[in-house]
Amino acid sequence: MVSNNAQDEQSYANMAPLTAPDGRPWYSYDIVAVDPQTHARAGVLHTPHGDVPTPIFMPVGTKATVKGILPPQLTQIGAKIILANTYHCAMRPGAELIQEMGGLHEFMQWHGPILTDSGGFQVFSHADNVKLTKDGVTFRAVDYDGSYVTWTPEQNMAIAQKLGADIVMQLDQCAGYPASRAFVERAVELSGSWARRCWQAHTRHDQALFGIVQGGMHMDLRLRSLHYLLDAGDFPGYGIGGYSVGEDHQTMFRTLEPLVADYMPKDKPRYLMGVGNPTTLVRGVACGIDMFDCVLPTRTARMGSAFSSEGRLNLKNARFVHDHGPLDAACTCPVCQGGYTRAYIHHLVRQKEMVGSILLSLHNLYYLLDLMRRARQAIIDGTYGSFVRDWMDLPAAKDW
Amino acid sequence: MVSNNAQDEQSYANMAPLTAPDGRPWYSYDIVAVDPQTHARAGVLHTPHGDVPTPIFMPVGTKATVKGILPPQLTQIGAKIILANTYHCAMRPGAELIQEMGGLHEFMQWHGPILTDSGGFQVFSHADNVKLTKDGVTFRAVDYDGSYVTWTPEQNMAIAQKLGADIVMQLDQCAGYPASRAFVERAVELSGSWARRCWQAHTRHDQALFGIVQGGMHMDLRLRSLHYLLDAGDFPGYGIGGYSVGEDHQTMFRTLEPLVADYMPKDKPRYLMGVGNPTTLVRGVACGIDMFDCVLPTRTARMGSAFSSEGRLNLKNARFVHDHGPLDAACTCPVCQGGYTRAYIHHLVRQKEMVGSILLSLHNLYYLLDLMRRARQAIIDGTYGSFVRDWMDLPAAKDW
Repeated sequence: MVSNNAQDEQSYANMAPLTAPDGRPWYSYDIVAVDPQTHARAGVLHTPHGDVPTPIFMPVGTKATVKGILPPQLTQIGAKIILANTYHCAMRPGAELIQEMGGLHEFMQWHGPILTDSGGFQVFSHADNVKLTKDGVTFRAVDYDGSYVTWTPEQNMAIAQKLGADIVMQLDQCAGYPASRAFVERAVELSGSWARRCWQAHTRHDQALFGIVQGGMHMDLRLRSLHYLLDAGDFPGYGIGGYSVGEDHQTMFRTLEPLVADYMPKDKPRYLMGVGNPTTLVRGVACGIDMFDCVLPTRTARMGSAFSSEGRLNLKNARFVHDHGPLDAACTCPVCQGGYTRAYIHHLVRQKEMVGSILLSLHNLYYLLDLMRRARQAIIDGTYGSFVRDWMDLPAAKDW
Repeated sequence: MVSNNAQDEQSYANMAPLTAPDGRPWYSYDIVAVDPQTHARAGVLHTPHGDVPTPIFMPVGTKATVKGILPPQLTQIGAKIILANTYHCAMRPGAELIQEMGGLHEFMQWHGPILTDSGGFQVFSHADNVKLTKDGVTFRAVDYDGSYVTWTPEQNMAIAQKLGADIVMQLDQCAGYPASRAFVERAVELSGSWARRCWQAHTRHDQALFGIVQGGMHMDLRLRSLHYLLDAGDFPGYGIGGYSVGEDHQTMFRTLEPLVADYMPKDKPRYLMGVGNPTTLVRGVACGIDMFDCVLPTRTARMGSAFSSEGRLNLKNARFVHDHGPLDAACTCPVCQGGYTRAYIHHLVRQKEMVGSILLSLHNLYYLLDLMRRARQAIIDGTYGSFVRDWMDLPAAKDW
């Protein structure tokens, strides 16, 4: 496999010129405004498939498809960048096939920026079916055909380069919560060593590789993890993993805020991985986070729930049978503006109709996309401090 | 219940003026062209929610939703009129609720014409759980809550008026195939008597009530059924039921062709109920049929099948794994023109992703809508005879 990887690297190194056709770098990050009261920043991330205004929420298209939503609908609701899961794409239909089909963008017909995770999170969630080896990690794909799969950081980067996303993440190990300090420390050491190997193995110039900060709820381990990344290479951006894994908000922000605000490079985008509840987005932006992703808006939609300014609504509830109103009277999404009533969506959800999941998914995704659009405007206006305070006063804030 | 019905009739009679606001009748049917070689006609059916060019295929929105497809997408693929099922809508969420929400158009946010069936087909498909009574039919809704429901023709018309479709169908009994002549004859007698009662009970001027010709594969019973309808009232259009219930094409067209071409009123639209396979559409138009509906395009889509000029494609098949082509190279639908490959759709179908069902549903519906658009143009051009011959030479023709 190593020789194959070497070939892959070679071919990609040859494929992509060092700079974009217009002579500018493939990636750059401009900060447009910094909020005076918080650590929030508004920026623009330039990628080969277009510009991404930050802060931004990224809808998740697990298996090269955002469940129930077509790419033109993603454009309609204002999505600027989406995420696909390397683990799932590598299992089905496989990285080789996606490469053969022209990469993820062509395969799924989304021509805006794409970010792929490393798959490390999914691999290590295989619990009893995962084992660290000298070079990497071996796991049994019990959620597919039960086959044994081995990933080294080098093989993981070869997969990432075949999938062809704009932004890819280093292979890492995410510790859960609660976890012993010793376990979290070993995950930091492993992730740090893998960051270096990923940096070395990654050769596509038209693809940005982000490092990932681990370290659980231990400030010293977070800083050690960050130090390893700064030492490993000149990453164009940084993921922050290992949060929102079971801890409460207070525990989370005790280390997240100083990590981001005081220690992480200011000139690079920061991506809080796997976080999608609205209140954490609002508070995360105040810490200086630029990017978020989560399955929450689409997964809860398929279970019949809607984000709203009144809090979370369970559309299965009988109180919506006669409700003539939209999901959220304050919302400007195509569903709320399109005349679809809570009564209609209640009916669809109760009858397990696909259109119910689709309408709720569109609304929930728009809700987070619009929340970040409004946050960005507040940062530019210098009023993000009051934006956060207003949010925390909403009934919705307590729901998440 | 009879007194309630009387109230309903009264209130609707008061609600809808005798003619449309512009002084013209609510409904009219203009024949634009008649093919010189076949019995095919091109027409325009004027309804309160817009004009319907005929011949036309009507997508089915069973429970006030076309499965997986939003109303703007129906418009995008050229749907001009859709169907909803009275039985399912009456069971969930109920005709009263839909009326309270402003009728089907408002409820589902489809503002083009809607046709509702009578529900008779679904009621009589309850087999052992259905019983004829002196006044109507009683059945046990085993596919919902198992409750006993009684429908008289008058109650059925009250439901139709509450749902508020543009076109509604009389309550009828559809005999299957094979069936004894005595059974078919009793169904003709019952349907004829119900046609008269529906005509008497239906009072909404802004809603067209179609009678239904039954009679199985017996020409004399078909003509008797038609005679009952002509005697019962001045129906603005006619459904033809009891075909495509298990018989072969030859058996079907032996009576269908003379019934339509030689006996049915020429100045009224004719609707062949529940038929959606492409070859039957092409041949039905040649007999003089104007309207069709069927769940086939969306149901087969959810099972992973696509209509195509090569015949029916099962996208689950491993031969599509590496297929870079569109579903049908001859197709101009948003899916085939949108860059979605057979390989991608194969992946989605295998992974049971909603977007797979959605893309196949859009394609299959477009396929039938476009087939009828092209048929209509051929009729206008006076070349429908060769259109039929060309179709029957296609490999696809044998597939259906």
